[in-house]
Amino acid sequence: MKAIIPCAEKEENLFPFSETKPTALMPVMGKPLIEHNIEALEENGVEEIYIVVNHLQEQFSDRFKDRDGVKLVHQEELDGTASAVKTCDFIEDDFLVLNGDVIVSERDIGNLLQKFRNTGETSILATDEKAPEKFGVLSIQNDEVADIQEKPEEPENPLVNTGIYVFSPEIFEAIEDLEEDETSITDAVRDLIESEGARFELVQDYWIDIGSGEKLWKADQIKREYEIEESEISGKAEVSEDAAIEGEAVVEEGAEIKPGTVIEGKCFIGENSIVGPNTTIRGSSIADNSQLDHCSIENSLVFESNIVDSFVAVEGTVLAEECDIKSGTVIRECLIGARSFIDMNNSIRGTKFVPDARTDLGEISK
Amino acid sequence: MKAIIPCAEKEENLFPFSETKPTALMPVMGKPLIEHNIEALEENGVEEIYIVVNHLQEQFSDRFKDRDGVKLVHQEELDGTASAVKTCDFIEDDFLVLNGDVIVSERDIGNLLQKFRNTGETSILATDEKAPEKFGVLSIQNDEVADIQEKPEEPENPLVNTGIYVFSPEIFEAIEDLEEDETSITDAVRDLIESEGARFELVQDYWIDIGSGEKLWKADQIKREYEIEESEISGKAEVSEDAAIEGEAVVEEGAEIKPGTVIEGKCFIGENSIVGPNTTIRGSSIADNSQLDHCSIENSLVFESNIVDSFVAVEGTVLAEECDIKSGTVIRECLIGARSFIDMNNSIRGTKFVPDARTDLGEISK
Amino acid sequence: MKAIIPCAEKEENLFPFSETKPTALMPVMGKPLIEHNIEALEENGVEEIYIVVNHLQEQFSDRFKDRDGVKLVHQEELDGTASAVKTCDFIEDDFLVLNGDVIVSERDIGNLLQKFRNTGETSILATDEKAPEKFGVLSIQNDEVADIQEKPEEPENPLVNTGIYVFSPEIFEAIEDLEEDETSITDAVRDLIESEGARFELVQDYWIDIGSGEKLWKADQIKREYEIEESEISGKAEVSEDAAIEGEAVVEEGAEIKPGTVIEGKCFIGENSIVGPNTTIRGSSIADNSQLDHCSIENSLVFESNIVDSFVAVEGTVLAEECDIKSGTVIRECLIGARSFIDMNNSIRGTKFVPDARTDLGEISK
Repeated sequence: MKAIIPCAEKEENLFPFSETKPTALMPVMGKPLIEHNIEALEENGVEEIYIVVNHLQEQFSDRFKDRDGVKLVHQEELDGTASAVKTCDFIEDDFLVLNGDVIVSERDIGNLLQKFRNTGETSILATDEKAPEKFGVLSIQNDEVADIQEKPEEPENPLVNTGIYVFSPEIFEAIEDLEEDETSITDAVRDLIESEGARFELVQDYWIDIGSGEKLWKADQIKREYEIEESEISGKAEVSEDAAIEGEAVVEEGAEIKPGTVIEGKCFIGENSIVGPNTTIRGSSIADNSQLDHCSIENSLVFESNIVDSFVAVEGTVLAEECDIKSGTVIRECLIGARSFIDMNNSIRGTKFVPDARTDLGEISK
Repeated sequence: MKAIIPCAEKEENLFPFSETKPTALMPVMGKPLIEHNIEALEENGVEEIYIVVNHLQEQFSDRFKDRDGVKLVHQEELDGTASAVKTCDFIEDDFLVLNGDVIVSERDIGNLLQKFRNTGETSILATDEKAPEKFGVLSIQNDEVADIQEKPEEPENPLVNTGIYVFSPEIFEAIEDLEEDETSITDAVRDLIESEGARFELVQDYWIDIGSGEKLWKADQIKREYEIEESEISGKAEVSEDAAIEGEAVVEEGAEIKPGTVIEGKCFIGENSIVGPNTTIRGSSIADNSQLDHCSIENSLVFESNIVDSFVAVEGTVLAEECDIKSGTVIRECLIGARSFIDMNNSIRGTKFVPDARTDLGEISK
Repeated sequence: MKAIIPCAEKEENLFPFSETKPTALMPVMGKPLIEHNIEALEENGVEEIYIVVNHLQEQFSDRFKDRDGVKLVHQEELDGTASAVKTCDFIEDDFLVLNGDVIVSERDIGNLLQKFRNTGETSILATDEKAPEKFGVLSIQNDEVADIQEKPEEPENPLVNTGIYVFSPEIFEAIEDLEEDETSITDAVRDLIESEGARFELVQDYWIDIGSGEKLWKADQIKREYEIEESEISGKAEVSEDAAIEGEAVVEEGAEIKPGTVIEGKCFIGENSIVGPNTTIRGSSIADNSQLDHCSIENSLVFESNIVDSFVAVEGTVLAEECDIKSGTVIRECLIGARSFIDMNNSIRGTKFVPDARTDLGEISK
């Protein structure tokens, strides 16, 4: 079994993070989104993974150039998901397609693959949604998929298409046969349904289409909730005996948890990050190489290489990489772009900062 | 022995707290003022207590509807303390009168009752005051009270009337006989002094007439000073082993003291309040159901159900119920009304906030 | 052996600290600069020390009036270092001269004295400087000093004069013989070099001429770096078992380190200073009698009797004596004059405050 992960498009809805990172490389629970998906695929026996790239593709090259089983494929024209899949039309085996901006569990991928193996038919991962009218809604007849209706005004059921499929190579012919104005892989899938039929499998755990900064934040919350069952402290991390880990924390190699630090709830502390002294971390992920000094990070997602000084409170926020937050600042429910310099005693609520933002002392932003 | 506690009047001098609570129900050392007084009366063998109510009387009904030995009496017209006592003219036994806005020790109540039992005469609790000219000053002859002069320009001694009396039912006749412009119970007492004589007993511990927010704050300080002799941690409270209780703290059932929290001096932490992590509490009372998160509360009185976020400093302040204080704010020497929402990084000093006050980011109030 | 320490001049470049203290009495590692030098001299067998005073001389009298082996000499006219040395022309023994505003190690003083004893010639302590053109540069021939050129445009080598010398009493004659426009002791030294020759000894450890607030800060950093090798906690200090001392700290008699406090790196905590609860101190010196409450002091030099409230961050700063810093304020890279009152939530960066400065709530200074 092989897999294709389309990652070529820049997702403007993920501004400001999309300016400096492709969605698939944004850290969720301390690790690029795509690494979670690659791991889930590999655990399910997928042996070759093709990542389709364009936007900021050098970041993919840097990360995957020596990785066994992972290959990059360049998509020249960003004209839809059908075209993205088509870049891999050299594949002669069955394969799974999973968009680079989603998060889904290993178990759900396994179930979908099993469905395909059992039936031999195109298999679609489906999920229940509260607002199905915003998605492709599946019509079901006799346990088979009868149709996919894009954003129907009156959905016939809450069952929607996650965009995760298992195909045989025949899909390439269906893509070839698309009309000029049909650019989505769903159009090809719909043709396959008509000609050969298709099956669906229901999400058991979670599926999030990360279409906004808030969804990215949510994905991190859910990932920690599902993945962290007990504390895992790397033997190469240093946790002071005067620090307290309440709840369950993952602390990675080289990380240092200094005295007086309290970590509450399910938290992730990435490699070489220094936390404390006297810092509070609650329900948050901190990626690698950050330095969090006598501050408070609550329900937040912190990208790598951040410096957060004393008496800074970060709450319900996504902080992109390499920011520098000076003492006394409070940031609540914000999306902060990479390399932002936020000076002392700022008050920032419910707003977005462009990358390389720079504030002065005591500024108010809302 | 019975007792009457007049609580009907709204005390405007206790604004903003009087808007949402009768004085007798304001929390002192975590418990409504009147509960301290009821306890002191019951410990001294008082078996029936009549609370005279009007302002916000439903709060008294809620609290006392099923309480043995406590009855509510409605005062229709708020025309003075004589009238308040008169609402209970059905009493045929001796009784003590203690205004609902004072704080006094069990021992001092006991001493006054003993004086009455020994002498059979109207007994008045008296205290030394530095500025007696602001009170009713007692004239003493041969160990008996010869007169009470209201706010005399040149007080003959520092001995003043606390408004706490033990009467026989004859007081009701004296009230009946008052002139139309005599509305204070002191007027009736003065008539009794003339006709039958009266005794006094001196306060040994403390007596505070809570006539302002500052006095309420003071009452709480004094109550903790006198009542807390050693730490008492409820078996149903949860105190982290990484928290430090320096000095003496009372921690009530369901309260949680999280790691890194330091409690200094004599402090009271009410039921189900969550303190920490990394919070400092010093010389303060926290009533029930509050949540104090990586903040600092010093020499303050915090009513119930407050939420105080990270790096908030509350100093020398009375915080009414159900406020929400966002991170980075500093409040010093203030009286904050109920349900105030105070946003991030506010600087507030020496001022009063009306109930339901609402501030924006980084505001300055003084 | 005797020593002269000229301290009479007011050093305007050390504003604002020079307004309230002579340089020699500014605390470095918790102790007046001159005490370090006196100790180093005494350890090297110097038995009589003459401090030449004028500016704020009563502070010297207060400190040294009963000190064995230390005498004060008044310099009336502040007309140069030659004149300062001349005030001690009653000395009939060999002596060392060391300006009151420098910091140098005991070992380096010892080496210079040894050079003098070995050679019997005027001996000069010299050091390598990156920018020798700002100093007096030594010309060397055959291991002897051939000349001293003041601030040469093109220095012949990086070897500069520290202003620390050992003389025989003949220097007084050289001073007598100076022309009217020659006011520096270096002028007399140059004459001696010509007539009798002079030797030099190189600094092994450190020499700092404290000519600015930044240099004062630097001197404290270096002194801690060199002098503190392991933690030394006075038996009369009180360190909570819930405090953490990481790295090496000197904690003096009567000091109190409260729970939740973390001390990192090489730090000095002076007599009777109270630190915590929940305070972070990192790479800093705190002089006597300060009170640092749930705050963060980083890479800073704090003079005596400061009060620093909750959630104040002081970073890379020199804080003169008796300041009062209210909660929530952040001070970074500043020189703050004595007795400054800085109110709540101030943001102060890269600036100087005059003594007795007074700010309002939430002020910004830069």
